[in-house]
Amino acid sequence: MDKPDTRITEPDHGGGIDAACARWGGNRADWLDLSTGINPRPYPIPPLPADAWTALPDRAAFAALETAARRFWRIPDSAALIAAPGASALIARIPALLPPGRIAIPAPTYNEHARAFRAAGWTVTDDATEASVLVHPNNPDGRLHRAPQTPFAVIDESFCDITPDASHIAQATRPGTLILKSFGKFWGLAGARLGFAIGDPQLIHRLKPLIGPWAVPGPTLAIATAALSDDAWATETRARLTQDAQRLDHLLSQAGAKPLGGTTLFRLYDTPNATLWQDRLARHRILTRIFPYSTRWLRLGLPDGPGWSRLEQALT
Amino acid sequence: MDKPDTRITEPDHGGGIDAACARWGGNRADWLDLSTGINPRPYPIPPLPADAWTALPDRAAFAALETAARRFWRIPDSAALIAAPGASALIARIPALLPPGRIAIPAPTYNEHARAFRAAGWTVTDDATEASVLVHPNNPDGRLHRAPQTPFAVIDESFCDITPDASHIAQATRPGTLILKSFGKFWGLAGARLGFAIGDPQLIHRLKPLIGPWAVPGPTLAIATAALSDDAWATETRARLTQDAQRLDHLLSQAGAKPLGGTTLFRLYDTPNATLWQDRLARHRILTRIFPYSTRWLRLGLPDGPGWSRLEQALT
Repeated sequence: MDKPDTRITEPDHGGGIDAACARWGGNRADWLDLSTGINPRPYPIPPLPADAWTALPDRAAFAALETAARRFWRIPDSAALIAAPGASALIARIPALLPPGRIAIPAPTYNEHARAFRAAGWTVTDDATEASVLVHPNNPDGRLHRAPQTPFAVIDESFCDITPDASHIAQATRPGTLILKSFGKFWGLAGARLGFAIGDPQLIHRLKPLIGPWAVPGPTLAIATAALSDDAWATETRARLTQDAQRLDHLLSQAGAKPLGGTTLFRLYDTPNATLWQDRLARHRILTRIFPYSTRWLRLGLPDGPGWSRLEQALT
Repeated sequence: MDKPDTRITEPDHGGGIDAACARWGGNRADWLDLSTGINPRPYPIPPLPADAWTALPDRAAFAALETAARRFWRIPDSAALIAAPGASALIARIPALLPPGRIAIPAPTYNEHARAFRAAGWTVTDDATEASVLVHPNNPDGRLHRAPQTPFAVIDESFCDITPDASHIAQATRPGTLILKSFGKFWGLAGARLGFAIGDPQLIHRLKPLIGPWAVPGPTLAIATAALSDDAWATETRARLTQDAQRLDHLLSQAGAKPLGGTTLFRLYDTPNATLWQDRLARHRILTRIFPYSTRWLRLGLPDGPGWSRLEQALT
């Protein structure tokens, strides 16, 4: 066995500040991470119940979270719900729900879906009509999809909380449908690890043993219950993200990158040479995202506070 | 679909204070929960890094946890390691690592193992020689097992941190072996959700996609890294738990229950009628554990502080 196989290692995605330090230098604290689509102004951590860290999360804590989630996302009563430690935990498990077959996952998109389905023996192909995954809005280009027509359909709405009216949540009552929601991105609390699958009760029922009991930490349950009950924060945050996304587009346009879209949590740009742009910003300790399938696309999350002037300086 | 199937619900185990309120009355705050084996004096939550809640846990955070875990548990270098949101998340996934067969799980023991293997199509039978699960020390009777001889073996050491010299960690290098560790019990932080599987690199490698990336929250990584590096706290805690277990045995003996063993995190007692004992203590808002396979066994976790006098009063 190779030594690396005995270590805890994680896939390489956005957010790899340590990898950036190894490649371009600096310490963690030196870097401005714009490689993710995580809201840089997070929901404020509320006071936690005394036993949030010490007790096994109780039914009441899960029930309170569920009530808040059903109201916030307007989940139809006949749709079922499961909470997991991150949408990624669900993405890893969903392919095991059905015997491997053919599935359509319109590219380019978030690569974990195809990776998980392939790992479970599925064939990812554009012309599959039996099963599909739609990332809605899509990552990285922000494209919105019409509701899927396949008998088995996963709709990843991890970035849909900025545009709640675009949600396909009404589809959650359709047999064979699962809708994913992520807590980390819009609320800016990716370290809390929380995601939901919502939809066909039979599929959710089969997901439960794959996730296991008490999968979500007590403090996360308390924080998310408060956040999902706070409409004022959500409304204000949507407005701010819209303004900040426009500001980012303006900045990048002036620097010679062409906005291609995205969501208000991340923006996609066309550049003459994405690797050079990433490298140039990295020399200013600003981490961005490029894609293996494009030599021109550059994705940036939103800066906040002094991050704006750092980015401005790096671009001029 | 029945309405309950659309709700987030959790299996019924120790720790069901809400269920106790429903059955015997009172509010959560009224109850003293002695139905678990969770250390009532938890490891103190250290100051958390600024980005623990907001950033995706980075490789450096996982690497720091792994270094601390390998040192604390003396994990052989050639054994692999995975961190998951609770030992229960691992117990739910492990049966999927091999094609279903026959497995020995010496009863009575923690029921989640048999439940997970049966759900995955395995046959649980005393005379299986191909595969086994040993809970070491055993829950609820505290029995210690010799190292297993089966080609596939799971050793659940969730309660072994109170008796580290009894650990079978040296077996972690044996092909087909997985050793489970739990962070919630000895360190008293069950709400933090953290467990480990340690052992055969090929099995751990196959567990990784079933757990998914970033499965452990950032704050939990930071807390556990500190706790697993703190030998003084562990030594002091072991001594205190030993004293408190003796005190509990003395108290229950005087009240007419006969100590049958257990660990220093929970004690098992023989009573004339376990249901009556549970009911009697529940009327004092003290929750204990009884077992579907015994009419006489009663299990109690350790009280702390004013919990001792409450228990004394309830027993006299």
